[in-house]
Formats: sequence, structure tokens, C-alpha cells
Amino acid sequence: MKCFFIILFFPVSIFAQINSTVDSIFIRKAFDVALSEGKAYEDLRSLCKDIGARLTGSAEAEMAVYWGKQKLEEYGFDKVYLQEIKVPHWERGTKEVAWYKTKDGVLHKVDVLALGGSIGTNGVLTGEVILFNSLEEMQNTPVKKIEGKIVFLNQPMDEKLISTFSAYGGCWPVRGRVTAEAGKLGAKAVIIRSLGLPIDEHPHTGSMNYDGDNKKIPGAALSTKSAEELAWAIKNNKKIEFILEMDCKQLEEKISYNVIAEITGIINPENIITFGGHLDSWDVGEGAHDDGAGIVHSMEALRILKELNYKPNNTLRCVFFMNEENGNFGGKTYASWVKEKGENQIAGLESDAGGFSPRGFTCSGNDKQIKMLQSFAPLLKPYELHKFEIGYGGVDINPLKTYYKDIPLFGLRPDSQRYFDFHHTEADVFENVNKRELELGCGSMAALLYLLDRNL
Amino acid sequence: MKCFFIILFFPVSIFAQINSTVDSIFIRKAFDVALSEGKAYEDLRSLCKDIGARLTGSAEAEMAVYWGKQKLEEYGFDKVYLQEIKVPHWERGTKEVAWYKTKDGVLHKVDVLALGGSIGTNGVLTGEVILFNSLEEMQNTPVKKIEGKIVFLNQPMDEKLISTFSAYGGCWPVRGRVTAEAGKLGAKAVIIRSLGLPIDEHPHTGSMNYDGDNKKIPGAALSTKSAEELAWAIKNNKKIEFILEMDCKQLEEKISYNVIAEITGIINPENIITFGGHLDSWDVGEGAHDDGAGIVHSMEALRILKELNYKPNNTLRCVFFMNEENGNFGGKTYASWVKEKGENQIAGLESDAGGFSPRGFTCSGNDKQIKMLQSFAPLLKPYELHKFEIGYGGVDINPLKTYYKDIPLFGLRPDSQRYFDFHHTEADVFENVNKRELELGCGSMAALLYLLDRNL
Repeated sequence: MKCFFIILFFPVSIFAQINSTVDSIFIRKAFDVALSEGKAYEDLRSLCKDIGARLTGSAEAEMAVYWGKQKLEEYGFDKVYLQEIKVPHWERGTKEVAWYKTKDGVLHKVDVLALGGSIGTNGVLTGEVILFNSLEEMQNTPVKKIEGKIVFLNQPMDEKLISTFSAYGGCWPVRGRVTAEAGKLGAKAVIIRSLGLPIDEHPHTGSMNYDGDNKKIPGAALSTKSAEELAWAIKNNKKIEFILEMDCKQLEEKISYNVIAEITGIINPENIITFGGHLDSWDVGEGAHDDGAGIVHSMEALRILKELNYKPNNTLRCVFFMNEENGNFGGKTYASWVKEKGENQIAGLESDAGGFSPRGFTCSGNDKQIKMLQSFAPLLKPYELHKFEIGYGGVDINPLKTYYKDIPLFGLRPDSQRYFDFHHTEADVFENVNKRELELGCGSMAALLYLLDRNL
Repeated sequence: MKCFFIILFFPVSIFAQINSTVDSIFIRKAFDVALSEGKAYEDLRSLCKDIGARLTGSAEAEMAVYWGKQKLEEYGFDKVYLQEIKVPHWERGTKEVAWYKTKDGVLHKVDVLALGGSIGTNGVLTGEVILFNSLEEMQNTPVKKIEGKIVFLNQPMDEKLISTFSAYGGCWPVRGRVTAEAGKLGAKAVIIRSLGLPIDEHPHTGSMNYDGDNKKIPGAALSTKSAEELAWAIKNNKKIEFILEMDCKQLEEKISYNVIAEITGIINPENIITFGGHLDSWDVGEGAHDDGAGIVHSMEALRILKELNYKPNNTLRCVFFMNEENGNFGGKTYASWVKEKGENQIAGLESDAGGFSPRGFTCSGNDKQIKMLQSFAPLLKPYELHKFEIGYGGVDINPLKTYYKDIPLFGLRPDSQRYFDFHHTEADVFENVNKRELELGCGSMAALLYLLDRNL
């Protein structure tokens, strides 16, 4: 009897301990592969240099689909296929150009980029500048003061916030909304201070939206340096004239693709864990951090699991989403498609916050799901992951919530300090990604996929 | 009576809560100053560009002393003074140069830097190369195989280790000892694979030592790329000849200085908290991360406390140590000097691990001291500091342990992933330091100084 009691009493804790040791050994191996036999850095070089910037609808985006499918096939996953989607097609045209003219008649050239989705200026557009420090300030100004002018919205990101994504969040409506709102107030065009933290010469592009059939006016971003200079000039001149030319345009919708690879689950193949990043980028720089890093994080995580001969319980599905930057039709179409097919989506994971040293993961889920994430902390502490908290999953996977209310969505959280030095600028190039930081992200993604697969 | 009991019962927890709130508000203000009114980035630019690389004994080191004293005086601390020390004086001479010759007679130029403290080659030195992968392998080889040859020690840092400082620690004896050991075995010269993680063209210099009057031979470091190429050539050629010329030399000792500033304590001015970084650097690059970052972290931390009108209980003493890189005479002399003066040193804090995003602090101390550090974790979590563990304080403050056995020594721990991309190379320049990362380090230093002052 005594022996019987012991058998009954101990198994749970013993098994828990054995499981934890097994997990710990596996995760160590995943990081070993990432750091000493990694393919991610070379894959990112190839995506950045052999393909380059890859705005939805461009030839480069088409080549990126080809590149992605070929890479995933090379790595020999169980299934590799494309999912067709309709995408918008906007083109920047030739290079944008702008100046401001001070009262002494001197022209000052500024660093400028059209905002994604903007109309062109239809030749040279000239107007008096009116400066606002926030959307609210503009909206509280009488229409007659704004009519016929070029609105300059000079709201800086809050440098005191520790997470630069929080600082970005505070300014995001400026970029997304000001052009539509200023158009309603009769402005000729809008220029904004770039959503970036350092004072430098790189304007940051990014998406903006018009409101249906309301009047459309051009929208552009100045580098933070140009924005500071222009604000100073306005302070010291009665009247500043601004001259802008851009010939960007919206073209017909096109067909593009999400690129998908899977390792089939051996116990519950019908349960799907969807993870990935986005394959498209803006059309300046090389989309290295945004989101080349997320693409290679995801591909490499799946490769590491395969390399270690891991047989998942559930199906692990890696998705290179198309069109995150200006429409999110990749993410939206994917979500409605898997719902239509009646798939059982059990979790989502996204990397779309750069290739910097990973700090942990956020989870958009219920208490139980967040607690599960937090229970992984001891296993991930040796890799300097320490953030396991409630938060966003990612733009591409977020539409899954529309159809799967209880699905937990996870986001990789790399150190955010340098992200807005590069985001949507010509500086977002391969050379600004560090090999080890990128590889640690791959190890982290592989580890979380493994833990989710074992615990869901 | 009831009222009396309440008064007796609640004060401790109420006071603890009030204290914690006061601390939390103060620390937030310290980070606000660091991030929005910081001087550290401009001060680092000035140290890197107006002074430059500053090897002990050089004119630049002398100017750095002047620069440091002037800066500290400008900031108006209670006391600013110099502490005289004797320092070694080694000079690299003109640029080093080296080739290897393959069996087809072709010369291949390699990236090379003399190790600090090495003798010169006295003209062109030529010899056959013998490769070892570790110190042990060399020491287990018969002397006759080594005699008259040039030893090439090609031990890479272990890329699987998550802390790059652990990987550095594993290779450190190679750089420090191999030249002396190979000299005893009759080698002509030593070349080592640089102590760096990426495969690139930058050789990493650093200190090495000879053993007293034993035979001295030249020691140099190859870039990791050159080391890989040479190792490959040795594998594919029967015999490789190596050609090396360097004219570095040891000169007479010189007088130099530690640069010191203080804010005097208002309750226990006789209790000293010593903190700082090292003012000297190697003679390549600009010593931006090593240890310009530590210098401006420390100066800015004291400036922030002054800016916030903080009146410390104890005396806060900021020391810019001289000669950490090749002798540590700044640290050693300081420790013996404060002991002689009968000072009461109550804690040490050093920043000498780069200007990257801070992760936390290590403490070389007893259980109680480490627990105190860990008790600060909730107050520092909002700033993404998460490492509070036993570990090294720093080379400069370490000699304090010789005279003050129980003193706790703390080290700032920034993210380590990129440190050995730059360490001791021409790439350790201002441009490779990120403003926000640097400023978060300043906030962290100010916060820990404040907490130590309030809790010791």
C-alpha cells in the first residue's frame, strides 16, 4: 500500500519536472541552432539586397512572393503554397521635392516624402504655411484661417515614453487622419513632422486615409530636421511660402499573394497555430527591420524546429502576409479565408517590431492565456526575455479576432529604442540589423512556438 | 484608545508606501531629464570628436583630463579635483602591417593590430606559422615544433553564449597570456584571432602581459576575417609564411590623473559612494562605448541629481578613472588613497559595458546587499530594467574590495549583443552609440545612485 500511495502521490510533480527539463533542453538547442548555424541573417541580406523595398503592387513585391515561396520550398516544409489576395496599388512616382521661402526671398530645400496613398500635386503647388502642434489645435481653428493654406502639423513623438511604440501610438492619428481632416477645412495640402525620434534628415513615410468622396489634398512628411527648421522659420517670419511637387498616384487593384508554409501536426493536425510577419514594405530603404526581420524570424523559427526534428502536436503555419503597410488585405483576407474553410485556429504569433534584442512577448488574450504566457518566463529567462504581459499581437494576425473571439494573439517584443530611427525611411536597410540580435529573435520565436504547441 | 492603536499599527506600512511613491516619482523625473533635457549625447560627441582616442600616456589622454575637469566644473558640483597617479606609457608607433604567403608565392595582406604592451618586431619579421585552436593545445605541443615559428592562436568566442561578456571571458586568457607562454616555448611572435563576434575586417587590440624578465616576443591580433582566411590557407597549404612589422614600444612612466567630482552628503558626508567609468581608451576608434559611455553615464547621473535639487544623505563621488585598459593604475591608486585617508567607502558603482539599452545591474556583495538591489526591481521595472543579480562591479572600482571587504560593488548591465562588434576597434566611434539607449543608461545610473543613497 505504501508503495501504491507513493506512485499516486508523486507522478504529477515528477512529470512536471521532467517536462520542464525536456523543455529547457529543447529551447537551449533552438537557441544554439539560431546562434551558431543560423540562416536568418543571410536570408535577410538576400531579401533586402536581391529584392529590395517591396511596396504592395510593385514588381519587387511580386519578386518577394517568388523569393519567399522558393525559400520555403528549399527548407523542405510539409506544405508550401500561395493564397491569392486583391491589393491596392499606389506609386510614389518620381522623387518628391519641396522648399520653403523666407521673407528675404531665400529658398530652403526640405527633406520630404509623400505619405502612402496621397494624391499628387498636379504640378507645382504653392501656398502659405499654417502651423499646428496637434490635430485638436487645427480642429479648433476657424476654417477661414485654414482655407487655401498648407497645413503644417508639427507634433513630435513624446521622447519621455520608455516604449517608443507608445510614443508612436500618440502620433499615429496625426499621420493617418490629418490630411483628410485638413481637406475638409479647405486646406490645399498637408505636411507633417515625421513620426521619428531622432532629429535627422530622413523623412518617414507611412499610410494615410481619405474619407470616401470628400475632397482629397496631397499629404507629405518632412524629416524631423526640416520640420524643426520650418517651425523656427515660421516663428521668425511673418509669412512662409511652401512649394511642393509630388506625382504619386493610386492605380488599379492588383492580384498578389500571402506565402504560406506548414509543418503538419501529428496529434491534432486540424488545430492551426498561425505565425508570421509581413512581406511587403514601404518603397524607401529595404524594409529590413519593417518587416524583413519578422519574415526571417518566422521562417527561421520553423526551420529550427524542423532541424531539431520536432514533430508538433498541432499544425504550425508560417504566413508571409502581403500588404500590411497600406490596407492589410493580406491579414484580412487570410482571416476570412480560414474561417470560411472552417479551420480551428488556436493561436497567432507575429513579429513586426524589428530585429533588435528580444525582450519578451505580449499577449492579446484572456487572463488564462496571459497566465500561460507568464508561466513560460522561467524557461525563457536564460535568454534575457523578461516581458510577458498583456498587449498587442500584430496587425496581420489581428483580423483573426473577428472570427475567433477567444484566440490568443502573441507579439514578439524586441527592444524598441532604435526602431523609430529607421521605420519607413531610407535608413531601414540590412546594414542596420545586427546579426546576433536578429538570431536571438529567431530563437525566441522558435521557443514560443514550441511552448504554445506543447501547452495549447 | 482606538485611535492610538491605529496610529501605532499603520505607520510602518504607510511610510513604506509613501517612501515608495516618493521614490517612484523621483525616478520618473530622473528619466524625464535624461530623455528630454539630456546632455550626455552631446558630451559623448565632444569627448569622441574634440578629444578622440585617449590611450594612457598620450596627448589625447592628457587633453581628456583637462576636458573632464572643465566639464565637471561647468556643471557646478560641490568639489572638482584631480588625483595624481603614475601610469605606463606604451605607443603603437606607425601603422602595423602583415601578410601571409601561400605556396604559390602569392602575398595576402591581413588586418592586424599590435596587442597593447607588445614589443615591436625590430624591422620585418618573417616565419612559418603554426596554428593552435586553444592555449592548452599549444601548451601540449612539443617545444621543438614551436621553436622559431610564429604561433597563430585561432580560438573563436563562443557565439552560443547569450551574454557576450561570458564569451569574451572564455577567450580573455588567450589575449592576455599567449604571447608570454609562446615566448617561453621559443616562438618568434604570436598572432591571435581577435576577440570579437562578427566576421569582419576590424582587428581588436587589448592588453597582454609578459612574465618579468622572460623572453619577450611581439604579439598582434588579426581581424576575424583575416583569421578565418589564414586558418583556411593553412589547411590548404603545406607551409604558410607570415610577414609582420610593428614598431610599438614601451616608454617611461608618466604622471596622469583621475578626475573627480562630488556632491557632499548632508547627513553623513563622511560616507562615500564612489561611481564612474574610465577616461582612457585604446588608441583606435574613439572609445565611444569603451568607455566614453561610462564617463557620460556617470557625469550625467550626477548632473541629473543636481538638476532635480537632490540633497544626498551621503557624499556622491564621481570618478573618471585613468588607465583601466593597460594597468588599472587609476583604480588601484584610488583605492589605496581613500584607504590611507581613512575614508568610509560605502558602495561602488561602475558603467563599463557600453552605451546600449540598459538591462539592469549586477552586484558583487553579500546576500543582504544583493537582496537590497533586488528590492529596487519594482521601482525600475517601468524603465525595462530586469536584471538584478550577483555579478561583477567593474575593473576600476574592484580594488576597493582589497581595503573594504564588505563594500557592495555594482555594475550597470546594458544589452551586451553588439558590444564585441566595437570593443577595442576602430569601429568604436560616436556614430555607433544611439542617443536614447545612452540616455536610458544615464537615467538608470541616476536612479540607482538615488536608491543606494536612500537605502545604505
